[in-house]
Amino acid sequence: MLIVKVGGGDAISKLAVTEDIKTLGGDVVFVHGGRRQADQVARELGSPTKRIVSPSGLTSVLTDKAVLDILTMVYAGLVNKQWVSAFQSVGLNAIGLSGADGRLWLGVRKQHIIAVENGKQKLVSGTYTGKVLEVNSKLVKTLLDNSYVPVITQPAVTSDGTLINTDNDRTVAVMAKALGVKKIVVLFEAPGFLKDVSDPLSVVSRIKRGELMDMMRYAEGSMKKKVLGAIEAFSQGVETIYWGDGRIDHPVREALAGKGTVIQ
Amino acid sequence: MLIVKVGGGDAISKLAVTEDIKTLGGDVVFVHGGRRQADQVARELGSPTKRIVSPSGLTSVLTDKAVLDILTMVYAGLVNKQWVSAFQSVGLNAIGLSGADGRLWLGVRKQHIIAVENGKQKLVSGTYTGKVLEVNSKLVKTLLDNSYVPVITQPAVTSDGTLINTDNDRTVAVMAKALGVKKIVVLFEAPGFLKDVSDPLSVVSRIKRGELMDMMRYAEGSMKKKVLGAIEAFSQGVETIYWGDGRIDHPVREALAGKGTVIQ
Repeated sequence: MLIVKVGGGDAISKLAVTEDIKTLGGDVVFVHGGRRQADQVARELGSPTKRIVSPSGLTSVLTDKAVLDILTMVYAGLVNKQWVSAFQSVGLNAIGLSGADGRLWLGVRKQHIIAVENGKQKLVSGTYTGKVLEVNSKLVKTLLDNSYVPVITQPAVTSDGTLINTDNDRTVAVMAKALGVKKIVVLFEAPGFLKDVSDPLSVVSRIKRGELMDMMRYAEGSMKKKVLGAIEAFSQGVETIYWGDGRIDHPVREALAGKGTVIQ
Repeated sequence: MLIVKVGGGDAISKLAVTEDIKTLGGDVVFVHGGRRQADQVARELGSPTKRIVSPSGLTSVLTDKAVLDILTMVYAGLVNKQWVSAFQSVGLNAIGLSGADGRLWLGVRKQHIIAVENGKQKLVSGTYTGKVLEVNSKLVKTLLDNSYVPVITQPAVTSDGTLINTDNDRTVAVMAKALGVKKIVVLFEAPGFLKDVSDPLSVVSRIKRGELMDMMRYAEGSMKKKVLGAIEAFSQGVETIYWGDGRIDHPVREALAGKGTVIQ
């Protein structure tokens, strides 16, 4: 079993990814984002996405109720069904699910988060963010046993039914453990992990898991979360993570063949 | 097994409906709309929903690509996960699905539709509307066998993976046949079928299936489609349809107890 996670960019061809997964064969659990489209819808709705920075320098979306609603619309609605449609167009019968469906991603909501603003720390409450603690692996296996491709995205859910936004990369790590998955492919809009984000030739092609924390100094933006997600995935029993370019032909197979960054 | 279908209005309490379904026990397949919220999002996005009238006087949403995207966001994303959240808050483990997921509602796209404008008929092409022909009843049964409540909504999907908008009431009829369902509860924002839409006391409490076509003359707006959906449902083997008020306490049980309109 393989987890394939694709970010929320526009430059990744859904057809190329789904065709490649079909050629690959075998059980695939698919996870996707939708940030770029969510940001666009938020702008069009007149409530542009606000971001906050954590004391450790991580940038996150400030998920108030309006942002959660847009996330639910765009990730679990529009983008999820676009992926389902793409999978079905290549002959794979996909089932799109949010983490809330069947309590697939069961988590806890954070009471408050700490944000840094103008050099000062402040407590932000009332956000719909949290952390996934349990995965309904039985549901995933039931779907795979019946030849469906699970296509999974945010939001997750708490035990009282509250929808929450969780970090996709860390959630994938928790899911990998629950499913006993040893390999994860992560596709994004870069040729791999870059030492210099402005230089596509600065790809680091091999990283040892013990070197991951060192890589944080080169990581920018959402790449920081991918590094942290990878560290968590290794601590959960994952053996290899493939970071690859989602914009090329056969993006999944190329990543597995080591074209991007392989972390072991 | 019972199908419960709820319209897309604001005045129906999701908590009251889901609690009532829990008390009811037994297998329930849940279908919902989302028109009011979709219209609101469409207005906020600056592309208000356009409607067309068919030669037989039925009003439909003109589903171009932008409208399909909003429908997919709002029905399959926002509203679907709000229902899933409500079910889970009362302790029922719901799984939200669009008709595209697992090819649950497999249909054909209409090449063109006929609209009446200023008394003249015109051909409209390029819409993403269609008709459901097959239902993946095996998927529904697998979910029910595993104690999940299927929570289903638009869009449906064609065999080549195109997302399409279909009429919920007619689709419920097709699904009832596929699942061998004999009873359907339909909840909306009225005390039942009204002979005079402006008079809540004009509820028709019992209708014989043979009288349904006669009722078309009293039906207004989306009620016309409910009447046609009911006629189709009876032709597909359904034995009783309960039209009830979704705004009251215990709306499902009250409808089943005959408080609204019972059609047999």
